Formats: sequence, structure tokens, C-alpha cells
Amino acid sequence: MLALHCGADRQVSLKDLPQPRPGPGEALIRVTLAGICGTDLQILRGYHDFKGVMGHEFVGVVAGPPSSSWLGKRVVGEINVSCGDCDLCRSGLPRHCRTRRVIGIRDRDGAFAPYLTLPEANLLAVPPQVEDEAAVFTEPLAAALAAVDAVPLSRNSPVLVIGDGRLGLLISWALALSDTRVHLVGHHAEHLSLAQPYGVATFLEQDLPPGDYAAVVEASAAAPGLDLALARVRPKGTVIMKSTYVQPYPLDSANLVVPEVRLIGSRCGPMGPALRLLARGLINHRALIDRTFSLSQGVEALEWAQRPGVLKVLLDCRD
Amino acid sequence: MLALHCGADRQVSLKDLPQPRPGPGEALIRVTLAGICGTDLQILRGYHDFKGVMGHEFVGVVAGPPSSSWLGKRVVGEINVSCGDCDLCRSGLPRHCRTRRVIGIRDRDGAFAPYLTLPEANLLAVPPQVEDEAAVFTEPLAAALAAVDAVPLSRNSPVLVIGDGRLGLLISWALALSDTRVHLVGHHAEHLSLAQPYGVATFLEQDLPPGDYAAVVEASAAAPGLDLALARVRPKGTVIMKSTYVQPYPLDSANLVVPEVRLIGSRCGPMGPALRLLARGLINHRALIDRTFSLSQGVEALEWAQRPGVLKVLLDCRD
Repeated sequence: MLALHCGADRQVSLKDLPQPRPGPGEALIRVTLAGICGTDLQILRGYHDFKGVMGHEFVGVVAGPPSSSWLGKRVVGEINVSCGDCDLCRSGLPRHCRTRRVIGIRDRDGAFAPYLTLPEANLLAVPPQVEDEAAVFTEPLAAALAAVDAVPLSRNSPVLVIGDGRLGLLISWALALSDTRVHLVGHHAEHLSLAQPYGVATFLEQDLPPGDYAAVVEASAAAPGLDLALARVRPKGTVIMKSTYVQPYPLDSANLVVPEVRLIGSRCGPMGPALRLLARGLINHRALIDRTFSLSQGVEALEWAQRPGVLKVLLDCRD
Repeated sequence: MLALHCGADRQVSLKDLPQPRPGPGEALIRVTLAGICGTDLQILRGYHDFKGVMGHEFVGVVAGPPSSSWLGKRVVGEINVSCGDCDLCRSGLPRHCRTRRVIGIRDRDGAFAPYLTLPEANLLAVPPQVEDEAAVFTEPLAAALAAVDAVPLSRNSPVLVIGDGRLGLLISWALALSDTRVHLVGHHAEHLSLAQPYGVATFLEQDLPPGDYAAVVEASAAAPGLDLALARVRPKGTVIMKSTYVQPYPLDSANLVVPEVRLIGSRCGPMGPALRLLARGLINHRALIDRTFSLSQGVEALEWAQRPGVLKVLLDCRD
């Protein structure tokens, strides 16, 4: 099969690879659609070493083994493959398993391919009312929900979300759907307008009114986003960091210690609740799709996804 | 009166100043003993701009106004002077008042002087069984208790405290007294030995056994301490930052986001509980006192306090 592969020196190419064979307890999944994520782009910029088939956002159909009770089912999958046996797995943190592998990110082939394998324990069945173009957003929506879960509950004071890209929009929508007041700040009026139907108050950065926030979510994927977060968080407030930056961030420790601010890292989230939210039809996923490429155009798709202001780029992986 | 004054370009000198006059609702305090804190030394290194009489750790006796119900009482004092009226004061965060002044640190003269003034609302009476040499530790002990309060409660897994200086020792003692298992890591065997009677397990840094911690308190006042904290905190764990560094810290955002770590800034703490802990005789304050200088030797005292491995330096402020 031809798969989008990241090799030595972060060289990406379509590579002819054998179809993967599921191990014990694993399923073979025929990938329908896959999504390009900021993490994929950061891997290309050297965020961390990964060699193998890229991609972790996907929806597909179980194609094997023939004995599997999942055969023929439409699925999405938890991207962290955990041992189930270490202290972190046993304490309810399988996404932080000591020996975890992560499809397309760490030590395990990913979804930018016609086929991938995953443990059956990682699979979630996609309800019929969730179309493939929605289901492919399950993983990024789960990551958005992780940020929502980290926001201290307050119905009274607004939460500031920084960044009007895919993740910032999903976070602002999910917060608004959980009855939280949201201010979204970004640089693209046309992106910000996608949050307004959810009741989100939106601002171009230069128009953000003065004042501070008990909670700020930094989802801009750029260091000035964290500058703004630390400038706008209230004393004793919380900054949730969704973004990793390729370069070290020059943290002024006084900005944390003196106002006693909490800086909370947030990565993956719960897939089941994300899928339920999609099933309720409350996520305007179509508005997030910039363009769909065929897998054979994968290299161009990755280039396209790096253009400023591009929202979600999908790959049609059916060969 | 002669007071230890920080002027332009962080020039410290004994300066002849008029005795301060208490405003409405304020008391005049004759300072008995004052303590030199890491923050005082950081102000000298340019941590932030302060001009005026230095010092915020003190014990003294109320000397005026004649009508005060506090007259003649031995007192310590909350160092943050708050308006009582802003949104943060009204929401129970007076130590983060929008217009707060802090004695010896921000916009208000401090305690390295024979006299200082403070609002009576800031005063706490010192119980008779607490000697002056103990009472002068109320403020740093309160700061240590703030770190203790920020540690997620766990009786089972140890908390790692980084730094065997004054603050690291106070924090490790206070944690141990609250029935928490503590590992203290530092560079001075003779300081570490002061924690052992509290049941604290102590380690020179090169001897710290492998493993990670659900909670780490960084109290080393040096960037390598935060490196160690982030290397040793468990996924989903908490790092409490007590130290400010003069230089920006180069934060690798992946060290927060991927393991979903919480980094919590912590500054001042509750004076009342600290005074109660001192009154119970459980804090080995005498072991922390390196040397007591007279206020007239204040410049030398500040120099002495900057020598590596020096614990608490006190100033006898009685003229």
C-alpha cells in the first residue's frame, strides 16, 4: 500500500509499504478519511523525532481479522496504545502509560495510509447519524474537551480562548455548549465569525477589551499566544496550554509566582464524549474543512495545511 | 532614624530618614528583629524596581498612635497592604489587591528600620510563648504553608521538595508536620540534616533515586531546580513554583503539554496558621539562624546573606 511516511531528517514521501497485520487483540482498519493536525506539522518542524506512517485523526471501517466482532463496523480510535499494566495505566491514566505508543506520533504507524492497526480496546463505533466528515473530528474534539474539563467551572465570568484555528474554534464551541461564557481572540475575522452562532463573543486581538480572566485557554500554537495568556489571566487564575512550540518559551517566573497563576498542560481528551457531541449534531464540522486531498496527494496536502489561515485539511485514504 | 534604603540603581545604604507617621487606621511599630529574605536579595539583583526602606519579615512592638488598642503589643504583620474594595479584595484575594502595596517590596517602606507603619488590620499579636527569634519567621513560614496548601493531598506518595535553603527547609518541615511523606533534595548535607528529625528523607541531588512524583515543590531559587522539577514530576502531576528567577526560564512547552503537568505559582501565605505553628513549638527556627547583625551593619548583613549556603540572616533593629 502507498502511505504517507516520515523518514530520516523528517523527509515526507509516499512510500510503498506492506499492509500492516493486526497483532493479538488488534483490528485491521481500512481508513476512510484522515485529518491533518498541528502536531503532524510540528513533527515536520522537528518538534520531536518520529519515523513511520504519519497521522492520528481518522475514521475507517474494520476489515479484519475475520474473527473480529468489530468486522465491518465504522470506527474511530483512541490514539494512545497503552500497556494496561504500569502504575499509570492502573491509576486511571492510560493515556500517560509508561510505555505508550501513539499512532503517527510515537513509535507506531499512523492513519495516513489505506490501512492501520489498533487494539480493539481502542476502538469506538461511530453512530450512523455521524457522517465520516464529522467522525474524523472525534480526536481533535476530544482534545478540545480536555481543555474544557481543565477550565475551573464558572458560569459568571467569561473564559478567554486564544487562537481562531481549528482547535481554538472547537474549544470555544465546546465551552459555549457547556454553558460557559466565552471570549475568543484571533487574527482571522472569517474564522472568528464561525464562533458567533455559538454565542461566543469574538475579537480581533487589537480589539480585545481591557480586563483579566479567571481562565484562559492558549490554543494559538505560537509563543505570543502564551504572552497574551499570562498578560490577561487574573491573579490565582488558570492558563490552559494546548499548544506546544518548537522553540523554548522564555517564561518570566514572576508572571506565575507573584500572581500565583496556574499553568496547566493539556493534550488528549475523552473520545466517547466527543463522539456523543458529534452525534448530537452540535458541531459545525463542515465549516472547519478547508479542503480534502486524496492520499496520493498527501505531500501537497501537508504543504497546503501549513498555509496561514487554513483550517482542517482532510485526506481521502480509500485507494 | 537610620534605615536600610534601596535607592536608584539598586544602591543600598543606611539613610537618615524621618520616623514614619501612621496614617488613619495605621499603627507605628518599633521593629525588634527583621529577617533578610531571598526576595530582598533578588531586588538587589534587579528582579524588580523598588525604591525605599527594604525588608518585609519582622517582629516588633506597637508604639503608636497613643489611642491604639494595639499599643505595647508584640506583633507581626501581613506584608500586603490592600484596598479592601477592588474586585479581588472583595472576592477573598486581598493579597492580590489591584492596588496593593507590599512593605519593602512594592511602593511602601519596609522593616529594615527602627520603625515602620502598617494598617492595624494587618497586625497579628504574637503569643507570649513565641520568642522574637521565632516570630520573625512568621512570614516565611506562611509562604511555606502556601506551598503546602497547593500540594494535592496524598498520604501515600511522597512529595519532592527541591532546595535545602530556608524556604525549602520550612516547606519540608511543614509538609512533614501535616503528615505528608517528603523527599528533600539539595546540595548541602548540613542543611539536609536539619530536616531529618522531622522524618523527611533527604538526598544530595546526585543521590536522588529514580522515579517520579505526583507533586514537586521548587524552592531552590535557581533555574536548574525547575529543570529537575519538570524532569521528576509524574504525568498529570503538580509542580509548585516558589522561586522567581532573575532570568527568563526557557520552558519546553512539550514538558507541560505532553505529560499534562500543572505548574502553580505560589507566593505569600496565611500568617495566622504560621503563627499558630510557631506557638506549638514545632518549628526549629534556631537552626535556621545563621547570624544576627545590628541594623547599623545592614549593608554587610545583605552581603553576608548572599554567600552560598547561608541560611537566615537577621537584623536587630533596636536603635
